[in-house]
Amino acid sequence: MTGSLTIAGLGPGADRMVTPDVTAALAEATDVVGYIPYVARIAPRAGLTLHPSDNRVELDRARAALQMAAAGKRVVVVSSGDPGVFAMASAVFEALEGRADWQALDIRVLPGITAMLAAAAAAGAPLGHDFCCINLSDNLKPWEVIETRLRHAARADFAMAFYNPRSASRPEGFGRALAALREECGEGRLITFARAVSTPDQCITTTTLGDATPEMADMRTVVILGNSATRRVGHWVYSPRSGR
Amino acid sequence: MTGSLTIAGLGPGADRMVTPDVTAALAEATDVVGYIPYVARIAPRAGLTLHPSDNRVELDRARAALQMAAAGKRVVVVSSGDPGVFAMASAVFEALEGRADWQALDIRVLPGITAMLAAAAAAGAPLGHDFCCINLSDNLKPWEVIETRLRHAARADFAMAFYNPRSASRPEGFGRALAALREECGEGRLITFARAVSTPDQCITTTTLGDATPEMADMRTVVILGNSATRRVGHWVYSPRSGR
Repeated sequence: MTGSLTIAGLGPGADRMVTPDVTAALAEATDVVGYIPYVARIAPRAGLTLHPSDNRVELDRARAALQMAAAGKRVVVVSSGDPGVFAMASAVFEALEGRADWQALDIRVLPGITAMLAAAAAAGAPLGHDFCCINLSDNLKPWEVIETRLRHAARADFAMAFYNPRSASRPEGFGRALAALREECGEGRLITFARAVSTPDQCITTTTLGDATPEMADMRTVVILGNSATRRVGHWVYSPRSGR
Repeated sequence: MTGSLTIAGLGPGADRMVTPDVTAALAEATDVVGYIPYVARIAPRAGLTLHPSDNRVELDRARAALQMAAAGKRVVVVSSGDPGVFAMASAVFEALEGRADWQALDIRVLPGITAMLAAAAAAGAPLGHDFCCINLSDNLKPWEVIETRLRHAARADFAMAFYNPRSASRPEGFGRALAALREECGEGRLITFARAVSTPDQCITTTTLGDATPEMADMRTVVILGNSATRRVGHWVYSPRSGR
């Protein structure tokens, strides 16, 4: 048996947003590896071993998956959303460094609907013009880098999607981000909080930067800040195609 | 019969990347509206009317779709990729301005796999750290806005995804973009050209900014520029999770 490693995106939560590509890979897998709540989305079946693991062990998890693939297993590493956006794909490629044996494996990345796209769709089209996507978790980078990036993004007049706005370990970061953004963009800028998108708990709230508070976000929330032209129409929010 | 308007993303090209949500909406549609090559992806069937239209008539197309939904049809507006990323969702919301009757319609946006995510997956994980997404077509915005945005994005050390790098009407824009990026990021920065992603014509090429030429891109290409830490491993390219 020839082993393989597939890094697959499960989308934001609803099975109706999982691509047929990902469904097919899961149907052929011998082993599924991932963070506990994502592996919990996979139905158990004969011939499939589930390997749920805790958060913040991405590199260990990637190495374990590669080891199994090298041993001949058909391994699927699952991420929520898209595996290439703040998820497992980078960790797997990092684990390939210096390992020519693992680099020769059959490795594939299968994209998924990342949270910001599902959030934008639920809110309207706030990412309809140039935008950026920033991970506000400062586990992996210093706050100064995040703040510089936010200020450049504001001066470029990007709409912005924020992942991991409030980590349990450093909840103050998002308040600092909001303060910097108010300085750059003003109080009136529209901001959308999209919680648990595509699940039964989905909640979409649009307000202004002046009225936004850090408590509006938790770890299940994606936050989308509009650009200078983002506006409301009916109960929707959208960014005009022209950026103006 | 109650009309509805669904704005659906068909993904980058392969049917295996179309979500079940979008497939279900198409199965229930009475009318499908969109740009000619996207409508060509929909199988004809009894009870379904296809309305292909030319490019650059997005607002007219949106109004025609809303008119049909108001008349009781179940209309699906199709975009390739994700409808909220440089596609039809913004045009539909723009068409709602000042039309309280249309704003009361049953409107939904169904996300899709946008080209940059499929391109990144095919290349590795070049968008694995903070990134931005820029439409290089200057049909809707002046070149000065694009260049300012590129320079801020470079100084923020974003990875960057470029849509519509070379429009037929203004092919010189991409060369100017590459020149500005070389100034900001240096000759050694990795850049990936992903053409016709997920189709039989798929071609992925990674080179450096110093070796990149405008001719490497056409209208079917998404271009991904790495950040300062983006590197190769084996035949893959990825951005480390730490950004360093």
